[in-house]
Amino acid sequence: MATPCSSFELLATCGGARSGVLTLPHGQVQTPAFMPVGTRGTVRGLMPGELGDAGADIVLANTYHLWDLVGHERIESFGGLHQFMGWDGPILTDSGGYQVFSFKGYVKVSEEGVRFASPRTGDRQFLSPELAVEIQETLGVDIAMAFDECIEWPADRDRVARSTERTTRWLHRCLAARRRPESTALFGIVQGGMEADLRVAHAQELRELDLDGYAIGGLSVGEGHDAMLEMVEVAAPELPANKARYLMGVGHPRDIVENVLRGVDMFDCVIPTRSGRHAWAFTSEGRRNLRNARYRDDRLPLDPACDCAGCRQFTRGYLRHLLKNDEPLGKRLVTLHNLTYYLNLMRRLREAIRAEDPVALEALRVEAHVASDPAKD
Amino acid sequence: MATPCSSFELLATCGGARSGVLTLPHGQVQTPAFMPVGTRGTVRGLMPGELGDAGADIVLANTYHLWDLVGHERIESFGGLHQFMGWDGPILTDSGGYQVFSFKGYVKVSEEGVRFASPRTGDRQFLSPELAVEIQETLGVDIAMAFDECIEWPADRDRVARSTERTTRWLHRCLAARRRPESTALFGIVQGGMEADLRVAHAQELRELDLDGYAIGGLSVGEGHDAMLEMVEVAAPELPANKARYLMGVGHPRDIVENVLRGVDMFDCVIPTRSGRHAWAFTSEGRRNLRNARYRDDRLPLDPACDCAGCRQFTRGYLRHLLKNDEPLGKRLVTLHNLTYYLNLMRRLREAIRAEDPVALEALRVEAHVASDPAKD
Repeated sequence: MATPCSSFELLATCGGARSGVLTLPHGQVQTPAFMPVGTRGTVRGLMPGELGDAGADIVLANTYHLWDLVGHERIESFGGLHQFMGWDGPILTDSGGYQVFSFKGYVKVSEEGVRFASPRTGDRQFLSPELAVEIQETLGVDIAMAFDECIEWPADRDRVARSTERTTRWLHRCLAARRRPESTALFGIVQGGMEADLRVAHAQELRELDLDGYAIGGLSVGEGHDAMLEMVEVAAPELPANKARYLMGVGHPRDIVENVLRGVDMFDCVIPTRSGRHAWAFTSEGRRNLRNARYRDDRLPLDPACDCAGCRQFTRGYLRHLLKNDEPLGKRLVTLHNLTYYLNLMRRLREAIRAEDPVALEALRVEAHVASDPAKD
Repeated sequence: MATPCSSFELLATCGGARSGVLTLPHGQVQTPAFMPVGTRGTVRGLMPGELGDAGADIVLANTYHLWDLVGHERIESFGGLHQFMGWDGPILTDSGGYQVFSFKGYVKVSEEGVRFASPRTGDRQFLSPELAVEIQETLGVDIAMAFDECIEWPADRDRVARSTERTTRWLHRCLAARRRPESTALFGIVQGGMEADLRVAHAQELRELDLDGYAIGGLSVGEGHDAMLEMVEVAAPELPANKARYLMGVGHPRDIVENVLRGVDMFDCVIPTRSGRHAWAFTSEGRRNLRNARYRDDRLPLDPACDCAGCRQFTRGYLRHLLKNDEPLGKRLVTLHNLTYYLNLMRRLREAIRAEDPVALEALRVEAHVASDPAKD
């Protein structure tokens, strides 16, 4: 077996929270980490350098969309995804599993893989564990995600159990399909729906495989904050301490901090970027919708505590003008602000954990809850 | 009479081309100059710092749109337009005259001013020479433009003559309405349609008024390249040598260089920014539409001769991916590239004129013609 291309070093814990360093072919990721989402090989509207300056160690891109829109072999001919998108730090790709299951219209799952109609062209397409690994390795990403079965919520226990078993079989096929384990790590995904015992059993089963890292999937699908926390609470302790744990698709600042407290190391979510495009800004005083007329005469910076370009240079009143009138600079600035808020939150979480300071950690938990709700002033 | 707040120093000429420095309350403008268009107080998608880095000395904003969307008194309460939009260099505003005449639907011109229906709300609005000056002075811009009558093209000689006379009467009202001549300069506008003798007469009439600066308006309205050049050729020599000459709303690189050769000092145009949003890039090898499939596998930078962020960091193939899929970073990068191309062209024109180098100037003329047509490779 080849030497793994990734390693995780746990540096400190504070209660259930962990902080460490994930070393990957293109650099190190300080954890807990948030990965900005660049579905199509671009975090919407931002330059790669702006992500790095805001504190991103790693970005996420999407296997299905890059395969569908550009083609993995074409991206390889550009020197791989890092070169193509101009980001030389670590990249993780979603396997595409979640995307294809979420498409409306024709989606047919068999043991072999998933046959579906492209939402863009209507053409029939097919993804399998083998192809998902091939695409991701060809893109040259640091972390490939296993191709798993994603099911609807709610789903009955039987369906969850059968689907989780298929995810395991598909994981074995992903492992067998690897051709470049020396340059692309592979993370497996714990499923099990909202069934605590199935989550535990699946985590234990995956633990035996000594994977490069472990994701918790199938959450943030409508089950609510408490159910999500419960599933993480039962699954996380079953995962090996010396491997990174990634909670997929989560979440608001509140969700992130609560899951850090439960031992999660990595997160990705469209919320800061998508909300930014809809004029919602996260601040320590709560979320603000900058289209609101209340900001028309507001001469304060969006978030006086923030050092992003928008907060340093402009007022809420000007941002409101931009966003109200659909000026692209408004979306760009609030997107960058939100990522700056998230990435600063992660940095402060790391500092609190590494200082083993439960009081600081609790203060961040309280702030993250405030930040997730509309501002009250 | 108050001391004028602007002065123009002519540094060199080369044939009919001029190079100088326009000194304004917020800084100096090296001429020939191109003014990026930020209609609503933002050059679409770009930060003010990016404009300065690309070589812009001055930006243009629009009186009507800022008045309609934000309100001049509100902008004053933010400390003026410079503070509001975060640009501390010189600003020139269109008077709004061109906009209101261009609206479809209800537009009624009388000697008093223009009554029209807002294209945004349908509400009746009214602009006059006095209000246009008041708005611009309240915004605190460096250069206010006189409120002139803009007419359709083609128009018969009689209509042009009557309209030009009204523009003169309105200019006198603009001059009388000034309250802050020590902080906002006022440029008059030479009209006269495509009637050479009316252009000459109007230029001579305005010359007598010893204005802060002189614009040539009513061109680039469909008359074609040659007719435009002919009008500039007859009007420019009638304007005082010691005042800046601004050709409004022009144009492609070819139009800019040809008019520099005819003695114009300042330009503004939406072409580099609007074209950028439609994936058209100006390069010394010609215009390229980056949505085109021919760039799919192209690993060259957009313009190997350019040092803008997009050309330094990305390939044509990646830009094509962004633009084809409507990713906002694509529009942002090509907009910035086009402004960089225009502003570098102005810098090279200044260098050639100041070196009194007609050969270099001719080479730029040839390049600008090539740059304005689709690339042939």
